[in-house]
Amino acid sequence: MQDITIQRIKGLDVRFPTSRTMDGSDAVNRNPDHSLAYAVIGTTVSNLTGYGITFTIGRGNDLVVDAIREYGRLLVGRRVSEIIENMGEVWHELVNYSPLRWLGPEKGVTHLAAAAVFNALWDMYGKLEHKPVWKVIADMPPRDLLNVIDFHYIEDVLSRDQAYELLARVEGGKRDREEWIKAHGYPSYTTSAGWLGFSDDKLRQLLREKMALGWQSFKIKVGASASDDIRRLEIIREEVGPDRNLMLDANQAWDVPTAIEFMRQANRFSPVWIEEPTSPDDILGHAKIAQAIAPVGVATGEHCHNRVMFKQFFEQGAMQYCQLDACRLGGINESLAVLLMAAKYQVPVCPHAGALGLREVQQHVSIADYIAVSASLEDRMLEYADGFQEAFVSPAVAVNGAYQVPSVHGLGVELTDVGLQAYSYPEGSEWTSGNS
Amino acid sequence: MQDITIQRIKGLDVRFPTSRTMDGSDAVNRNPDHSLAYAVIGTTVSNLTGYGITFTIGRGNDLVVDAIREYGRLLVGRRVSEIIENMGEVWHELVNYSPLRWLGPEKGVTHLAAAAVFNALWDMYGKLEHKPVWKVIADMPPRDLLNVIDFHYIEDVLSRDQAYELLARVEGGKRDREEWIKAHGYPSYTTSAGWLGFSDDKLRQLLREKMALGWQSFKIKVGASASDDIRRLEIIREEVGPDRNLMLDANQAWDVPTAIEFMRQANRFSPVWIEEPTSPDDILGHAKIAQAIAPVGVATGEHCHNRVMFKQFFEQGAMQYCQLDACRLGGINESLAVLLMAAKYQVPVCPHAGALGLREVQQHVSIADYIAVSASLEDRMLEYADGFQEAFVSPAVAVNGAYQVPSVHGLGVELTDVGLQAYSYPEGSEWTSGNS
Repeated sequence: MQDITIQRIKGLDVRFPTSRTMDGSDAVNRNPDHSLAYAVIGTTVSNLTGYGITFTIGRGNDLVVDAIREYGRLLVGRRVSEIIENMGEVWHELVNYSPLRWLGPEKGVTHLAAAAVFNALWDMYGKLEHKPVWKVIADMPPRDLLNVIDFHYIEDVLSRDQAYELLARVEGGKRDREEWIKAHGYPSYTTSAGWLGFSDDKLRQLLREKMALGWQSFKIKVGASASDDIRRLEIIREEVGPDRNLMLDANQAWDVPTAIEFMRQANRFSPVWIEEPTSPDDILGHAKIAQAIAPVGVATGEHCHNRVMFKQFFEQGAMQYCQLDACRLGGINESLAVLLMAAKYQVPVCPHAGALGLREVQQHVSIADYIAVSASLEDRMLEYADGFQEAFVSPAVAVNGAYQVPSVHGLGVELTDVGLQAYSYPEGSEWTSGNS
Repeated sequence: MQDITIQRIKGLDVRFPTSRTMDGSDAVNRNPDHSLAYAVIGTTVSNLTGYGITFTIGRGNDLVVDAIREYGRLLVGRRVSEIIENMGEVWHELVNYSPLRWLGPEKGVTHLAAAAVFNALWDMYGKLEHKPVWKVIADMPPRDLLNVIDFHYIEDVLSRDQAYELLARVEGGKRDREEWIKAHGYPSYTTSAGWLGFSDDKLRQLLREKMALGWQSFKIKVGASASDDIRRLEIIREEVGPDRNLMLDANQAWDVPTAIEFMRQANRFSPVWIEEPTSPDDILGHAKIAQAIAPVGVATGEHCHNRVMFKQFFEQGAMQYCQLDACRLGGINESLAVLLMAAKYQVPVCPHAGALGLREVQQHVSIADYIAVSASLEDRMLEYADGFQEAFVSPAVAVNGAYQVPSVHGLGVELTDVGLQAYSYPEGSEWTSGNS
């Protein structure tokens, strides 16, 4: 490993035609094509390549791909060992590379690209250690784990010493939790039945299929029309019964007063949470909603762009369920910072994973959280959504409503050659065959 | 005007080699090349072209240019009159175009691009009305002004009715204030002397030059080294004396505790404000700093990415000086929303204008604020920085420490042919002549 250096970083534009079936449709995103900005890190060793992703919904994915190449320039020629041994510092350096920082900082297109690049570095890290990424994290002594994190801007609520204590106090039970989660899988909920563009009949049929497959928890999209939403909620409760978990997701459609008003009507369906009721930037607005609708919780995080925002959501009690996304945050590194703050504030982490690629990445975050950070499964569920598993070499697998713990080394987001040939944009066969 | 339609929107990459002289250097941005992502809207009428900009500091400017083209696609073929008559709705539509929204929302590369596009539409608007943009705004009846604003996500603190009242109560004095500001200019401060990369001798020399030109207010960059900062502050107070205004700008270099600690040391230099003490996303952190260092104020806003963030800064008392930037926000439209909230919370607006292009745009915001929104100059100063005036057809002009009210129709950010030939990137003569 000493002499391996990074030779090139490619950014590839890969898009899946989900808009043809309305998979993925919600109140704000009516016809998305789920897409990946795919980072491929080549080294001087032919059998060591890092694959990382971030997720978008179609147009503009090329902007993220171009930004991946910008960050890539900063890593080419460096030793892999030095990067991995100083990952927190390298993260800080890249995220603070000033001209790209100006375009954020730590948000938007550039931060999405940073996520893809750092996720690819974690993939490489796992391969070098011959472990899946969750296991790399789970096996790190607390001091090593702190070294992959940039504490800049969060030390006023979480010092390194506090973070160390959080990790040290759960160090003892790691082996037992690893065994348990391997045997039982990580609890999950499905979003596959509840996309907004589905007809009522398709909704009923999908709910029945998902229940038959063992799912106990379901998320449905709301926010386009209150009367349609209430009708759909009636159908859903009818189908799933009173005891299964039901979560609502408005995808930022509402103002604060509208959110509170809708939840007064929806309260009788006993939802676990309302997700993204308003602007993802509105910390104080989420706090107002949370106060008004308790004991129903507010869930948000998939568009929460960095640890500074999460810090404030936690400080304000504005988020009862933390839906961080390691592809929106600056990769696994910044996700670990958020896991630690969530542990301090005792907020359960239920990552955003309702699409291809995301499910593959976030399973590592949730499993590592259980083994090494929060040490708890209480109120925790990892989102799952079907689609395009065959495009991945090692897709995430859910059985009986639970993610199976992945064993492939690295992050497991490598695409198959067939998948790349089909979905590369705009030259892939799916995009040139006249379907689009 | 009825039949004029938009034919094409070009995005151009224009970069100025400011890093060669260390103009623009600060604690976070050590060697920026001040750059413009330049939007040019062509219509079916040969003498009507809209020019808009946003500002970056070099690498990655091309990402914003590409995003301008993405938004441009959504406007081509539309009637100019329909866009201008429904500008608030068109703004909402473009900013919420879902695949690009996913890359923000309303932040980062895509929102910078939206700013350039809407600023170009305002340029066109002014040209059609034969007025500079500040005058277009100043002459709007309150109801018309509200129609260019998207109130989504801010109505919990500012309803349309409240906004109407704010505008209506100052309607009477508009003509007098217009006459006054034309006669006296808009008060300004200069950042040109205080860049971090300058030597002590250059700092002294520039301060003397600026005082000789009539400047009464000076901003200096801090944040790289506390001991250097204190030494420079001693020099500055020695040069400018006890009565002239001195502002400090840390460009986000610090954590919250570091900011408070530094300001304890800097207090004896009686600064008006500390600008960007920490992460621009840290509303609660800024509030903590503001509480600790009062009566010195906290100034921030140049990286505050949308009206939802400003809303919370105002709610928390976290910002005593509002430094909005109409090129970071989604153009003039969103800036007007922020001006109204600032008026409600009685926070003075001192826009971010310390660079080429920015000074040309923000003068319209400040002058319109004085005439039609806040109706006050108290604690208000508009930033000014020299550089590359000759590249603009109608550069902003400061005389005796005050911006002269511009009279050219539109926004006044059109570049000269010579300027474009020199600074277009990478093909301009300044970039191909071996200087770079």
